[in-house]
Amino acid sequence: MPNTQIQIFDTTLRDGEQVPGCQLNCDEKIEIARYLEKLGVDVMEVGFPISSPGDFKSVSRIAAIIKESTVCALSRAVKKDIEAAAKAIQSAARPRIHTGIGTSDSHVFNKLRTSRENVLERGVEAVKYAKTFVEDVEFYAEDAGRTDNEFLAKVIEAAIKAGATVVNIPDTTGYCLPSEYGAKIKFLKENVKGIHKATISTHCHNDLGLATANSISGVMNGAGQIECTVNGIGERAGNASMEEVVMIMRKHNDLNFDTRIDTKHLCKISALVSSKMNMPVQANKAIVGSNAFAHSSGIHQDGVIKSRETYEIIDPEEVGALDSSIVLTARSGRAALNYRAKKLGYELGKEELDKHYQNFLALADEKKVIQDQDLVQLFQVSATA
Amino acid sequence: MPNTQIQIFDTTLRDGEQVPGCQLNCDEKIEIARYLEKLGVDVMEVGFPISSPGDFKSVSRIAAIIKESTVCALSRAVKKDIEAAAKAIQSAARPRIHTGIGTSDSHVFNKLRTSRENVLERGVEAVKYAKTFVEDVEFYAEDAGRTDNEFLAKVIEAAIKAGATVVNIPDTTGYCLPSEYGAKIKFLKENVKGIHKATISTHCHNDLGLATANSISGVMNGAGQIECTVNGIGERAGNASMEEVVMIMRKHNDLNFDTRIDTKHLCKISALVSSKMNMPVQANKAIVGSNAFAHSSGIHQDGVIKSRETYEIIDPEEVGALDSSIVLTARSGRAALNYRAKKLGYELGKEELDKHYQNFLALADEKKVIQDQDLVQLFQVSATA
Repeated sequence: MPNTQIQIFDTTLRDGEQVPGCQLNCDEKIEIARYLEKLGVDVMEVGFPISSPGDFKSVSRIAAIIKESTVCALSRAVKKDIEAAAKAIQSAARPRIHTGIGTSDSHVFNKLRTSRENVLERGVEAVKYAKTFVEDVEFYAEDAGRTDNEFLAKVIEAAIKAGATVVNIPDTTGYCLPSEYGAKIKFLKENVKGIHKATISTHCHNDLGLATANSISGVMNGAGQIECTVNGIGERAGNASMEEVVMIMRKHNDLNFDTRIDTKHLCKISALVSSKMNMPVQANKAIVGSNAFAHSSGIHQDGVIKSRETYEIIDPEEVGALDSSIVLTARSGRAALNYRAKKLGYELGKEELDKHYQNFLALADEKKVIQDQDLVQLFQVSATA
Repeated sequence: MPNTQIQIFDTTLRDGEQVPGCQLNCDEKIEIARYLEKLGVDVMEVGFPISSPGDFKSVSRIAAIIKESTVCALSRAVKKDIEAAAKAIQSAARPRIHTGIGTSDSHVFNKLRTSRENVLERGVEAVKYAKTFVEDVEFYAEDAGRTDNEFLAKVIEAAIKAGATVVNIPDTTGYCLPSEYGAKIKFLKENVKGIHKATISTHCHNDLGLATANSISGVMNGAGQIECTVNGIGERAGNASMEEVVMIMRKHNDLNFDTRIDTKHLCKISALVSSKMNMPVQANKAIVGSNAFAHSSGIHQDGVIKSRETYEIIDPEEVGALDSSIVLTARSGRAALNYRAKKLGYELGKEELDKHYQNFLALADEKKVIQDQDLVQLFQVSATA
């Protein structure tokens, strides 16, 4: 059975860019958009045109440049938003308008201060209005994660009937457990009339650290698109990380899913986004963190030196990372010390290695990380090289 | 039904500390250990005593100080390791030795270059030997995530028979999907004779961003202990984040799990570990990141101003974070501008607000984040205050 292609909808330039301190100028956005196109994202959401003149302008410019990916603009279920979105993406080769409204009780009653019926109507009107500008309209049911499934199914059914080509089920607050989010997608798949006419999309936030798992649970239960960002940036704790969801599908052949993403660019786009948006990526970030392929404990180093797959499930080259590194610290063992010594040209006998190892540990307890020049000093008295 | 108490096994000072550049001196380790005790961790793994004299010393010193938490030391299934571990924790009020061996084919055949029978025997011998020193012995089956379930069940059954009080099922390479990891725990629960005599422990790595989800899937399927670290640090992409697993169980009452962790210290210990280990936490890290409770888009700000729970599932005070912040950027709306204006003492009429909002957006497109002093300048001409 060939793998099902899951659409990757990148929202780095919209949900990611709205983060405090991350705002980009127009040229920076274009640079990132071009790289996203090269990476092979199916859809890129590049802004919320009604929000500011600067955002409108950059959405328009990106729309005129990007040819391979669908270019999507966000709007609320409000006429002037939809008009601004339509205008901003009018020159796009593959334009999409993303519109929608909150459907959870908290959104309907506390934020919108209206009724469920009214929300459903406004959603339908928005989709219909967006359809007057473009064929490809994605509908979002904001806070779907906390929306009652029966009502959610009603809204989604109405949105599809009104012409939505994609229906987005956001876990806006990042509250769902993977089992719960998966069950929600399954419920829609089984209970929404006409669901086969639209693609179900996940949009998971990471407030409890579950955005990636929820997105995967979503596709395992019938979603066909994942919304995500580079480095998992986005409101609060951010969104599902593109690099994580893509590599899970790539490495788990048993899932029978794949994407069009050219993974060898993942580390490069991570660095580009991190630097332009001034959002450092922590060292222990999965796949793109600087330590993602670093081995420092003796037990692990010994294993990796013997056979890389003992402790590595991804070949660093596959994601464009530097080679996996063997970092020498006080937790390193003789195998790692000997490995590095050989690389430096020292052939140590067993006794020599033992002697150097004790000195190495004493130094490492002090210095934390031992560099090559430290080793050369350590070896210089009695080494054979 | 009262919630089941899940044991929190913190390994910040062992798996976390073995990360390149993170090594701590003895006093720093003691400071963190004291804070972990205050936080309420059930077990703290504080080192791998055979690895270096410095590590041996700090394990010994911590063992002598900590009274409330179990103090655990790591060892391989090797006599001299177990002896060093036993000696290092001899003065602990609640000592535990953690010992074990690799059980996956990759570990058995490529790293250890031996047979399954031999691995099983060595594991049993290690547990028995550790039991001559302490009552509380935890056994780990390294790379259990990729170990054939039938063989894993055999090894675990033998370890429990040999006296293991806790059996640790590490997903050492971070490869498992939550469904797969949960099924593995369930398999052990249903197929290991005597499994009720021991606590099953999860130890999940984050190479694919699934460590937190896998840990939760583990307890949902019968595990009683989660191994984790502050900020999710650890080898490569790190371990399950303590703050994430704890808050998932605290917020999801439907799971009927809880822990003894005093969550209001979570942000403080995150900052302590980050600063001592020189491991910055990214802004979008769940729960403890600087943006975890920051709202910047207009849609979200409007919602939060009306009712915090629209976009927040955790009250920042619950984890000791500063209050949720409304950050003004070009993605902010009128509601947020007006809210901040009021806080600064400006009562703006609708027209004034509209006028200022346009100027605000132009400035925000330039400056990215708008501070209070920028607003005061913006308002000074026509404001009524």
